[in-house]
Amino acid sequence: MKKKPLILVTNDDGITAPGIRTLISVMNEIGDVVVVAPEGPQSGMGHAVTIDDALYCDAIKIDDGPQKEYNSSGTPADCVKLAVSEILDRKPDLCVSGINHGSNSSINVIYSGTMSAAVEAGVEGIPAIGFSLLDYSWNANFKPLKKYIKQITLSVIENKLPEGVVLNVNFPKCETFNGIKVCRQARANWVEEFDKRKNPRGREYYWLTGKFVNKDEGEDTDEWALANNYISVVPVQFDLTAHSFIKKLNSWDL
Amino acid sequence: MKKKPLILVTNDDGITAPGIRTLISVMNEIGDVVVVAPEGPQSGMGHAVTIDDALYCDAIKIDDGPQKEYNSSGTPADCVKLAVSEILDRKPDLCVSGINHGSNSSINVIYSGTMSAAVEAGVEGIPAIGFSLLDYSWNANFKPLKKYIKQITLSVIENKLPEGVVLNVNFPKCETFNGIKVCRQARANWVEEFDKRKNPRGREYYWLTGKFVNKDEGEDTDEWALANNYISVVPVQFDLTAHSFIKKLNSWDL
Repeated sequence: MKKKPLILVTNDDGITAPGIRTLISVMNEIGDVVVVAPEGPQSGMGHAVTIDDALYCDAIKIDDGPQKEYNSSGTPADCVKLAVSEILDRKPDLCVSGINHGSNSSINVIYSGTMSAAVEAGVEGIPAIGFSLLDYSWNANFKPLKKYIKQITLSVIENKLPEGVVLNVNFPKCETFNGIKVCRQARANWVEEFDKRKNPRGREYYWLTGKFVNKDEGEDTDEWALANNYISVVPVQFDLTAHSFIKKLNSWDL
Repeated sequence: MKKKPLILVTNDDGITAPGIRTLISVMNEIGDVVVVAPEGPQSGMGHAVTIDDALYCDAIKIDDGPQKEYNSSGTPADCVKLAVSEILDRKPDLCVSGINHGSNSSINVIYSGTMSAAVEAGVEGIPAIGFSLLDYSWNANFKPLKKYIKQITLSVIENKLPEGVVLNVNFPKCETFNGIKVCRQARANWVEEFDKRKNPRGREYYWLTGKFVNKDEGEDTDEWALANNYISVVPVQFDLTAHSFIKKLNSWDL
């Protein structure tokens, strides 16, 4: 019998979030699971790391199951670093992050703590997948996702991801899906609408709100897939070089 | 006479850092300067945005010069969003971020608050450049950089960056440079070495340290350029799709 894969599970909504509990239950069917996740919500943390502060990371038991669990005061990226360097005896065979309560499609990938954890694992040479559901509510229905998460995870273990690539998987908010689509990241951005307020002492402050604007009409994008009830799978890289612009840039008189 | 460009200046070391003061002095020679920068250090913040907290942003005067200045309680990416949405009358013609005290070459680009500000501007359709010096000290010598920063900035204004691309400019720590090199991001990563300690109450905590490991022997990388006293210029994109892997991924039985 083959050895069970060692799977690191993390997220950005905090270790008690229903999304990560669902993900843990699926991963328990596949391998030996170690959870290292933030003690509280870390949404929108991007690829933040803690360089000027102490990091706590303690063993904890949230609910039943064979998994080992640790919660940390750090960011999602910190959790992966701590897991690899301090908690695990060996490099994990896989890192999964999520299930995020809310979308990480399109440009959201760069703000996402969930995806940053997956990217951090990728940077360290660990195959990684981020899972997200387009439903921000705490009590979102994660159940219909389970068989697809298992299927995609087994596929990654079997087929192996190339170096420098992780997967960004988003689920539309619906009961049944039209299938899985491999996509590219849609060209989109947030148009900010700050809510300007005054605090009780009269000082002005802002609260970030915004509107997501999809400028991309392509039918090969994650936004298109999700709008059409498909599960979107975007291969994500962390070589940010705009290779196609290098030749032109060399023609500039810099 | 042509209208002077409107230039937004930000950073991640905080509004009083010598790096941003140098950058402001150069930009004052080129255009109308508005500074919106974090009130304190935000290094390693990656592309974090503040979604669950109040954001302050107040007019301030740090030192002489024609620039308008605002300091914010937010992250570098927040500063760009606040500037564009609340502070500026019109979309800026350029956003420059830095000069960072320390390297943002290679994989550091994904952890960098400086580069995230530039990327955030790029997402919003504003030409943007991040500048960094490979010297972490507060009293680093930024003087030799000034003429190159001016030259690169004028070149960006004249030649225009394509949509979806910003520049990541790093300076080696030396008095004279061998020139400017257009590069790709080197394949490298940090190998963590957490320092495990006990707090005064006996609870264990960790402090993140690490060793930068360059796995890339290419002479077309930013790491090579910097090691050879060249100024590195990497065009950076925020479409993270690993386009080259899409065909292969479609052949998987997902």
